[in-house]
Amino acid sequence: MVEFRQQSDAADAVVYRVDRIVAEGKTPYQNYLFFENEAHGLCIAIDGDIQSCQKDEALYHEALVHPALLWHPEPEKVLIMGGGEGATAREVLRHDCVKKCVMVDIDGEFVEACRRHAPTWSDGAFEDERLELLTMDINAYIRETDERFDVVIGDLVDVADWEGFLATLYSDTFYDALKKILAPGAIVATQAGMLSPANHTSHLHVRRGLSAAFGHIRSYGAYVPSFYSLWGYVLASDAPLEGDLAAIAQTVAPRASRRGERVLEKLGAEGFTGLFALPAWVESLLREERDV
Amino acid sequence: MVEFRQQSDAADAVVYRVDRIVAEGKTPYQNYLFFENEAHGLCIAIDGDIQSCQKDEALYHEALVHPALLWHPEPEKVLIMGGGEGATAREVLRHDCVKKCVMVDIDGEFVEACRRHAPTWSDGAFEDERLELLTMDINAYIRETDERFDVVIGDLVDVADWEGFLATLYSDTFYDALKKILAPGAIVATQAGMLSPANHTSHLHVRRGLSAAFGHIRSYGAYVPSFYSLWGYVLASDAPLEGDLAAIAQTVAPRASRRGERVLEKLGAEGFTGLFALPAWVESLLREERDV
Amino acid sequence: MVEFRQQSDAADAVVYRVDRIVAEGKTPYQNYLFFENEAHGLCIAIDGDIQSCQKDEALYHEALVHPALLWHPEPEKVLIMGGGEGATAREVLRHDCVKKCVMVDIDGEFVEACRRHAPTWSDGAFEDERLELLTMDINAYIRETDERFDVVIGDLVDVADWEGFLATLYSDTFYDALKKILAPGAIVATQAGMLSPANHTSHLHVRRGLSAAFGHIRSYGAYVPSFYSLWGYVLASDAPLEGDLAAIAQTVAPRASRRGERVLEKLGAEGFTGLFALPAWVESLLREERDV
Amino acid sequence: MVEFRQQSDAADAVVYRVDRIVAEGKTPYQNYLFFENEAHGLCIAIDGDIQSCQKDEALYHEALVHPALLWHPEPEKVLIMGGGEGATAREVLRHDCVKKCVMVDIDGEFVEACRRHAPTWSDGAFEDERLELLTMDINAYIRETDERFDVVIGDLVDVADWEGFLATLYSDTFYDALKKILAPGAIVATQAGMLSPANHTSHLHVRRGLSAAFGHIRSYGAYVPSFYSLWGYVLASDAPLEGDLAAIAQTVAPRASRRGERVLEKLGAEGFTGLFALPAWVESLLREERDV
Repeated sequence: MVEFRQQSDAADAVVYRVDRIVAEGKTPYQNYLFFENEAHGLCIAIDGDIQSCQKDEALYHEALVHPALLWHPEPEKVLIMGGGEGATAREVLRHDCVKKCVMVDIDGEFVEACRRHAPTWSDGAFEDERLELLTMDINAYIRETDERFDVVIGDLVDVADWEGFLATLYSDTFYDALKKILAPGAIVATQAGMLSPANHTSHLHVRRGLSAAFGHIRSYGAYVPSFYSLWGYVLASDAPLEGDLAAIAQTVAPRASRRGERVLEKLGAEGFTGLFALPAWVESLLREERDV
Repeated sequence: MVEFRQQSDAADAVVYRVDRIVAEGKTPYQNYLFFENEAHGLCIAIDGDIQSCQKDEALYHEALVHPALLWHPEPEKVLIMGGGEGATAREVLRHDCVKKCVMVDIDGEFVEACRRHAPTWSDGAFEDERLELLTMDINAYIRETDERFDVVIGDLVDVADWEGFLATLYSDTFYDALKKILAPGAIVATQAGMLSPANHTSHLHVRRGLSAAFGHIRSYGAYVPSFYSLWGYVLASDAPLEGDLAAIAQTVAPRASRRGERVLEKLGAEGFTGLFALPAWVESLLREERDV
Repeated sequence: MVEFRQQSDAADAVVYRVDRIVAEGKTPYQNYLFFENEAHGLCIAIDGDIQSCQKDEALYHEALVHPALLWHPEPEKVLIMGGGEGATAREVLRHDCVKKCVMVDIDGEFVEACRRHAPTWSDGAFEDERLELLTMDINAYIRETDERFDVVIGDLVDVADWEGFLATLYSDTFYDALKKILAPGAIVATQAGMLSPANHTSHLHVRRGLSAAFGHIRSYGAYVPSFYSLWGYVLASDAPLEGDLAAIAQTVAPRASRRGERVLEKLGAEGFTGLFALPAWVESLLREERDV
Repeated sequence: MVEFRQQSDAADAVVYRVDRIVAEGKTPYQNYLFFENEAHGLCIAIDGDIQSCQKDEALYHEALVHPALLWHPEPEKVLIMGGGEGATAREVLRHDCVKKCVMVDIDGEFVEACRRHAPTWSDGAFEDERLELLTMDINAYIRETDERFDVVIGDLVDVADWEGFLATLYSDTFYDALKKILAPGAIVATQAGMLSPANHTSHLHVRRGLSAAFGHIRSYGAYVPSFYSLWGYVLASDAPLEGDLAAIAQTVAPRASRRGERVLEKLGAEGFTGLFALPAWVESLLREERDV
């Protein structure tokens, strides 16, 4: 029996049974593995970490994309940093108001592997005329582009794993450069690692960086079954991100149905509101940030 | 290295490192194991399944107890079925309005082991004068008692594991008997297994049973880090259990602060509301019940 | 981290770290997996069981081939049943006296995968003019051939795993048919599963079958590091197979150097003798056979 | 399910199912764990490493004790360094010629735990009048004793695990001191770690130390099922330790029956000879010693 064993924190691990190896490869940037698992369908792992699994990748990607886009009154231009599988683009493009979505991923080989072996992730997004896919260093793109974006989505591998190149993408220098290509009222969203009492250092790290660069930040979390954890995300903006649960339930969540047919398909309006219903124990973890 | 490996579903498992065995024993009803784990503190397992862990048992128990008690306008008498660790009683007794709490657990030896090795679970509850602890078969108790309860909490081991005795506690016969000792407007809450795409049979089983016996049921779920899953619960009552998220956030959750100082200590008011923010994918699982 | 977990017996397992997936496939007969492992090099697994690993496959194959060939005074014609990797053929062909070696393996696709991904196993054997490789059912071959063999080597997957086709290869009917293509004094050798107190049923099964068909049988065993066990083999013949350790050390083992340059390269003469030095605890397992 | 996972080498691990925890404790010197396992019976682990298991501990201990005692023409005084479980003493005392056996183990608490929870290991040895059990530092004993020993058996935890105290027991200084309490022709035997291509550093380390101190050394190995490996031992003496397999089979092994009734009960005479039948691949590992 082949098993994929992923450490959850210093003490525990999750073991996924590997029912079939679908593809494995090594690009100049990372090692990837696609395998079938009875519980989660096709699973994609990079450098030993599960990235997303077929049966619930929509949950992870809806939670990554829709809060930023729904919070914004009318996002037209969206930038995706990373997002190789194409599912982030798919979710962005479900908003009818989006006119242009630029996806910048440095690893063209991995993007190609996803298009070939995991086509349900992108589900046609790569063929959408509104998508511009660039295979290049996001730092260079930001330096050179003249675009101004309403929403930026960070879908990079977990900050805890970075070395060299990736480390630069969570740095103050990077955020400062990023701000120069934002339209007024723009919102940035990024995946930000696990929210667990025993493993939330990545999340605090991301919060601290965004907090230094932007006037407002807000953490939220989604339980993703195939991650066996509550996954954390951070919104950042110079515009306010306030709103209690009742306000979100009554104002933000209902926007989804006006944006497009399949927005929040897997989360639903209540599940969307639930992303922001952070329990006191999570709030308490977030307050640790000063000590990081 | 000693590891505690628990199957999550047919394909996957969670592996907890066992840093120290604290106690192990076999009672006439079950095998128990108490062990230390770096991520979760002291962990209690029965018959190979984690029951709760020190660092987040309050989450599991707050989610089990407070929805039923807060939904009820003024619960005075509460019955706990099972609940050996004493943490369910602890949470019930945090409601100042509760005048009497009867806890009926058949396994006195396990209750004693918890009092000795895991005293933070009960945290003084066993010494509270409002608690009546009975070591007996809950069936016999229900047959014989003259009490009428406002709230009943089911804190039994997972229905998926039952054989013989435990099976009777999730049967239609049992629920019918239970209804005879309920006060008007009474609410029943029970833990109801994992809510995962690959493992939710127990939950559907519990829903079906309660649904046949009571006029209203409502599922909710709490992410418990040490369970590595979204844990499901079911409320049941002959009184309505309706209320959208905004209503819960504005009406039910705020009751906590009037009930007692430490009610919802770990969940908080937003976390409490979040218990009911079921994503569309969970709602979809619940609709499978007709086919079970 | 990807791991290959193989059950050793009802209670224990060996976990091999999978450093790289080299190839995976499904033939009409079996699933195969080739992976790299730091401790053992390239590993070949069929249907979830390790078959052999690069760094010590020679041990397994020398122990399989040389006892039968060295016991025989001058083997000229050898039949290999199975042996897909080509290493059994390689060892047979190291005996200069062998004039013809017929290898019959039903799974041509697997043989091809081995030639491509694991060429050090066959190490040129497939190009040796003395080798005749046939892709067909061994039952049909035995029925149809006019050859008479001095030695027959059974290198089939473990009897414990058989179903349908493979089961026939360890049956009394099969052995009876096999005897018809043996030259006088012929010796049969077959791999025969693990020799462990908790897992030796396969071995006893093979012994029983050979014992019913042949006048003499003799078990022996080799410790193969990558198998994490003592691997069992059985010799069978109508000619005597006697000889104590001193006799083997003084008579049989020294034949190796006269047979060819690289015969017993990894075992050596002492290691060869050691194959027959069965401890009393193994002898005691073998005596269980009557009860199987 | 509780599992005991032991790393075999840098890449692989063996997983033992823990069916029941029998005892666990922490002495001033080590942590111990006694657990039941279906395949091996009661298992004893120290600091995360299996020491021996009920069903085959006799194999490990026979291989440790009898080569040194049988090589010696008539051992009367034997020193055991370590040997807490009492099984080494049991095997020594099976030689009728032994008049005195001194066992020096620093960890009296562990010895007591073994007497209580694993009595079949010592099997009465602690009550034998010829045994003197001392709870003290072996360094101090060697410095102070006036005894002169015919055989010394080292049954200490694996050298790979040592720190501080244990490191001293494999040092040149220690061996020099040890030589002063040896009778002429004395033989030293010690367990010396795993003999595996991927894990034999401990063995080479022990060989190098003994080789510097004694005129003759000889490695041998026993396959111990519950260790899932070939276990290595080293004999050392200023007297010659030569003898090929035939000589051992004809001269040394037969001594067992004259020494006592149950000497070599599990190994048998052939299994004893087999300890010295090192395959060429092991000989090749041993030649690496110069490079350590």
